[in-house]
Amino acid sequence: MSAPPSPVRTVALDAMGGDHAPEAPLRAAAALARDTDIGLLLVGDTARLAPALARAGVPPGRVELLHAPDAVPMAEAPQQALHRDGSSLALAARAVADGRAQALVSAGNTGALLLHAVRAIPRIPGVRRTALAAVYPTLPRPHNPDPFALLLDVGANVHNTPEDLLQFALMGSAYAARISKVARPSVGLLNIGEEPGRGDELLRTAHGLLAAAPGLDFRGNVEGRDVALGAVDVVVCPGILGNVVLKLLESMGDVMTQIGDGVYRQRLRWRAGRFLLRDGLARVSNLLDYASYGGAPILGFERIVIKAHGRSQARALENAVKVAAKAVRDDVCGAIAERLANGSA
Amino acid sequence: MSAPPSPVRTVALDAMGGDHAPEAPLRAAAALARDTDIGLLLVGDTARLAPALARAGVPPGRVELLHAPDAVPMAEAPQQALHRDGSSLALAARAVADGRAQALVSAGNTGALLLHAVRAIPRIPGVRRTALAAVYPTLPRPHNPDPFALLLDVGANVHNTPEDLLQFALMGSAYAARISKVARPSVGLLNIGEEPGRGDELLRTAHGLLAAAPGLDFRGNVEGRDVALGAVDVVVCPGILGNVVLKLLESMGDVMTQIGDGVYRQRLRWRAGRFLLRDGLARVSNLLDYASYGGAPILGFERIVIKAHGRSQARALENAVKVAAKAVRDDVCGAIAERLANGSA
Repeated sequence: MSAPPSPVRTVALDAMGGDHAPEAPLRAAAALARDTDIGLLLVGDTARLAPALARAGVPPGRVELLHAPDAVPMAEAPQQALHRDGSSLALAARAVADGRAQALVSAGNTGALLLHAVRAIPRIPGVRRTALAAVYPTLPRPHNPDPFALLLDVGANVHNTPEDLLQFALMGSAYAARISKVARPSVGLLNIGEEPGRGDELLRTAHGLLAAAPGLDFRGNVEGRDVALGAVDVVVCPGILGNVVLKLLESMGDVMTQIGDGVYRQRLRWRAGRFLLRDGLARVSNLLDYASYGGAPILGFERIVIKAHGRSQARALENAVKVAAKAVRDDVCGAIAERLANGSA
Repeated sequence: MSAPPSPVRTVALDAMGGDHAPEAPLRAAAALARDTDIGLLLVGDTARLAPALARAGVPPGRVELLHAPDAVPMAEAPQQALHRDGSSLALAARAVADGRAQALVSAGNTGALLLHAVRAIPRIPGVRRTALAAVYPTLPRPHNPDPFALLLDVGANVHNTPEDLLQFALMGSAYAARISKVARPSVGLLNIGEEPGRGDELLRTAHGLLAAAPGLDFRGNVEGRDVALGAVDVVVCPGILGNVVLKLLESMGDVMTQIGDGVYRQRLRWRAGRFLLRDGLARVSNLLDYASYGGAPILGFERIVIKAHGRSQARALENAVKVAAKAVRDDVCGAIAERLANGSA
């Protein structure tokens, strides 16, 4: 007897979302069709998509197309965008809910993606709130070969209870264990100081819940400096705090490049090394360029949902689709369900 | 008739606080005694301080000494430290309250400084909560020649009301106007998005109060990326959020240097430019080295109180004392009182 066929993994890719749509999603789909065996469902204006795929040499049928007559503008208010039933986001979310694909990737309007996903895709039983988790690079960590850490929630929620923060920790830990291959990811609670009693009522109560949760490698409170230094694998925080931290981190690449330009202009002897320095700073800031990474998983749904950065080019979308396919293969949603069932005793 | 003599400005410097005490405060006092006409009250163990000042060539009487038999350890719990009535912090705060000095500078335990100042020094009438304001460098801003912006509160408070945030805006604006010479500093509210309705109840209500405050150049909500980019002169936020942001910013210098080292090791062609690149990165990260700046004012007291970074060396303490003397000369406390009386109509 032959081995059973590997389970079908199809990722629905929103072809109309993001600053570089539909070109970037199209290029990503063509590259993925050529280089991987991931099933692809491209959702958008088929009158534009089909000829472009053919021009890119994608064999007919290799990429499935789903026509969407509408698209959500990047800056539209999410509640408004929720009325766009014919948008690529709405149809992609429904295709995932219906099992036509197992994962959803979009570089579009974050709030609209959240609302459409919430409407179409069931949450894992017991999940109180879904969380947007940012995957970000840290300094090298001795115990973890993966240079990335997870920060959540980064803005899916503005109101959080201590129980929500516990669930974020459990979901983030399950995700990191499956994706980063760290058996027991370390978890920290982002706070104003390291001592257990620090912070407001929300953070103090959450600290107690996290410390008592079975199976969680909780390292206590962490501070702002620990985020980029990579003190823990999973940093848990309320949505407003995480959102501010993420956007500040995202801006550091630009800040560094601009400071570097100013520095070299100030000093004559720098001009000799101008290209080296610029090149070096560019490389350093590339490491901080979150737009080139695979996107932010939204945890808590029964299907994999990944928000790619609005600025994503084709390579970032390729990475996001690969991560989504890996998450499906490794049953990340099942791992989260199991962790939630066991962890919040 | 001759002009009236300029008012006496004496700054009380805690000689026993900070990672490099008492050496750094001593060196700072000696340099200030030599290079400026600022009055100095050095508070600490006079048996160590007096001979050191003499050895540094400071003329007798140029620096006033106040003996403190005790000192607050850097890591002591603030409530515990409040019992140390004979500590340099307690005696320095009392000397300022009694008018023996007009400003207090300490690189010691932040929480202990706050509590000792709260106990000894009255708040400006109407001030609900004092705020710790971080002075941090931003990218160059066209309207403002000063490369620094103000972020508050960065951790004096864990509980904030919308009215507190309004007062932080008024106090920060008054401080920036006097110290940075920007007539009407722009003010932003740190939030999860730019639209007025974003954030939780606290931030939404605060947005309304700030927008309605007369005389405030309120630019609305700002996001994490706007902090380092210098979108506004004064960034207002609750204490936990500000503390996390400040500590993350403080860590970026280290992060950059370490990433830079890693980058150059990876590539052979980089080694040729090793020293240039390292030197360049070091210069860039120096710009992010908050320890070299003049410290964080604690706003809301009837006297100037400045918290210098725990890591402060002599130069940072010199800067902090100069800023304190300038704030006394420019009557920053009076400006804050006036702004509060007029601003929260």
